[in-house]
Amino acid sequence: MTKAFSPSPLFERVERARRRKRKIKDTQITLAHGSGGRAMHELVEGLFLEYLGNPILDTLEDQAILDIAQANGHRSARLAFTTDSYVVDPIFFPGGDIGKLAIHGTVNDLAMSGARPLYLSAGFILEEGFPIDDLKRILDSMSSAAREAGVQIVTGDTKVVQKGSADRLFINTSGIGVIDSDVRISAARAQVGDKVIVNGSIGDHGTTIMIARGELELETEIESDTAPLHLLVNEMLTEAERIGAPDGIHSLRDPTRGGVATTLNEIALKSEVHIRIFEGKIPIKDEVQGACEILGLDPLYVANEGKLIAIVSAEIAEQLVARMRDNPLGRKACVIGEVVAEPEGIVSMVTGFGGTRIVDMLAGEQLPRIC
Amino acid sequence: MTKAFSPSPLFERVERARRRKRKIKDTQITLAHGSGGRAMHELVEGLFLEYLGNPILDTLEDQAILDIAQANGHRSARLAFTTDSYVVDPIFFPGGDIGKLAIHGTVNDLAMSGARPLYLSAGFILEEGFPIDDLKRILDSMSSAAREAGVQIVTGDTKVVQKGSADRLFINTSGIGVIDSDVRISAARAQVGDKVIVNGSIGDHGTTIMIARGELELETEIESDTAPLHLLVNEMLTEAERIGAPDGIHSLRDPTRGGVATTLNEIALKSEVHIRIFEGKIPIKDEVQGACEILGLDPLYVANEGKLIAIVSAEIAEQLVARMRDNPLGRKACVIGEVVAEPEGIVSMVTGFGGTRIVDMLAGEQLPRIC
Repeated sequence: MTKAFSPSPLFERVERARRRKRKIKDTQITLAHGSGGRAMHELVEGLFLEYLGNPILDTLEDQAILDIAQANGHRSARLAFTTDSYVVDPIFFPGGDIGKLAIHGTVNDLAMSGARPLYLSAGFILEEGFPIDDLKRILDSMSSAAREAGVQIVTGDTKVVQKGSADRLFINTSGIGVIDSDVRISAARAQVGDKVIVNGSIGDHGTTIMIARGELELETEIESDTAPLHLLVNEMLTEAERIGAPDGIHSLRDPTRGGVATTLNEIALKSEVHIRIFEGKIPIKDEVQGACEILGLDPLYVANEGKLIAIVSAEIAEQLVARMRDNPLGRKACVIGEVVAEPEGIVSMVTGFGGTRIVDMLAGEQLPRIC
Repeated sequence: MTKAFSPSPLFERVERARRRKRKIKDTQITLAHGSGGRAMHELVEGLFLEYLGNPILDTLEDQAILDIAQANGHRSARLAFTTDSYVVDPIFFPGGDIGKLAIHGTVNDLAMSGARPLYLSAGFILEEGFPIDDLKRILDSMSSAAREAGVQIVTGDTKVVQKGSADRLFINTSGIGVIDSDVRISAARAQVGDKVIVNGSIGDHGTTIMIARGELELETEIESDTAPLHLLVNEMLTEAERIGAPDGIHSLRDPTRGGVATTLNEIALKSEVHIRIFEGKIPIKDEVQGACEILGLDPLYVANEGKLIAIVSAEIAEQLVARMRDNPLGRKACVIGEVVAEPEGIVSMVTGFGGTRIVDMLAGEQLPRIC
């Protein structure tokens, strides 16, 4: 959450805390462990990596980059590989459903490495009693989303558990993409002087889900922004090459769980830089802003499903933004911040009033089962 | 289930029924849809393929074979890609746990295409309140199983759902392997004259799970057979090549849900052949046979997690079996049947008394959440 700013002593305390090895102190899983925020990072870094760690997993990118060596000695293929389980509640919501999300989310995790998404797997866990008509609707939606994104579902699995042992259905999609160019996009490559770009307004998806749960009776036109971003990324890479800076896109990440704030914190930590964003430049729809105020949410922490954060070298930022605006998914693209040296591992925001606040990683869990 | 045999009229009726396009008539998901048997085939063929079908998925192999073309025009990589969700109950059982199963099951699905398993993803769905100590135990088990199988978990995902929205934890693993040779192993390649090989005694895993649920207070020494089979498969492929029949292994499949009976039915249907097995030749441990009798189960339909069915050309069958017996996972390997022409799409069993029965695909669901 954004915290009141006080100068260097606070920064130093935060920096010290950040350097401590993450450890998990809880004895039970809590909803916060699935938040995308601090507790999830503790679980992943303090537990999963301890047991399963290896040089590829340890990078904690949203996708693994694999060099598939052929036994025959031919040049290896460079692949991206990713997985996500979808447990969103409700399963149908304005702008999409769990099936569409399961395609877009995995396509986007591949795209954020510069990969061309090709093949998806789909694993279904179904609750006994789940209506076949709802399943048809979800499969139809997955089929359209896959076709539009140009990917094929090539392998699958179905499990059924007794009534009460799962909530309707969960879908896992894993994906494989091929990286044709020599790009090395990584959350660890943000550099001092870089600009921070977002491709449009933030907070739409999470706000839509919260409203769709009907806990507050809000009537709005807000829809999930769920969309496949690989073509936009491809255009960005092509434009960077055209400008003569093929390596100018340093980091790409889709700010899903934990929102833009958490994603920027991940990049700042991995790249050991400070990221400064400007409140007045962050595009937020009036309706989303209004709904978030009523729901008690900060749009910076709300999940997006059709947004990306790009950290790019300053020389190409404006041209990239112009190119992004030609794509329907980048109409509102803009520079929202910059990368500076210190205090490293931290994100700050210059507010509308000219003050500065620390924008921390999401703490706790405000939005369980958002994706 | 095995049915009393009556000669050709029954075969003809079964054949006619088999030729009908599978359709799903149910309005709700039932446990049988997750059985691995007939209802699951109806769901997959009558619904999933209708929406998601494409030439790769339509093969309904346990793994997709992908030719990854490189944009630079270099020789493509031939990959196997597979996914499975694990929902086994209980999560800890004699001989293993859900984590070990999640590694072995996906390694085996890759191995059954002749691939060298390389990389796995792991997606966790955790129930709020799940004990961290149990999670540690499962991660430790996954870590050991992955190390022993020579695979790396390179990407992952964690979701948490509210207490009551999932039963403890579910794990999805997807896997990528590389196929170095030119083998074309497929459930559609069984040929008249081929022999049917199994690598050991059947029914151990499913029986273990049923006993572990404690519904019957049985005290036995039975353990799950969960094991990674890729090295055994590799030795089989090497032996076939050494004998001078590199293409002599036609079909490989691990008989998990639905057991040996269902796997053989899948092969008979896809290859349009008749498979005849001999009751007296099928290895079953006395304890498993005894427990199955008490539990009312037929070992032919009980899940295995460290077994494979190989359909191989007759000339190499005995030499292959001899080679398999050198591997700890193939000590009890033997020929249990043969492939004949008619009546096609059907499996029959010559009983101990010299009679013949149809061995149908699993109907209904006897063992929910077995893997």
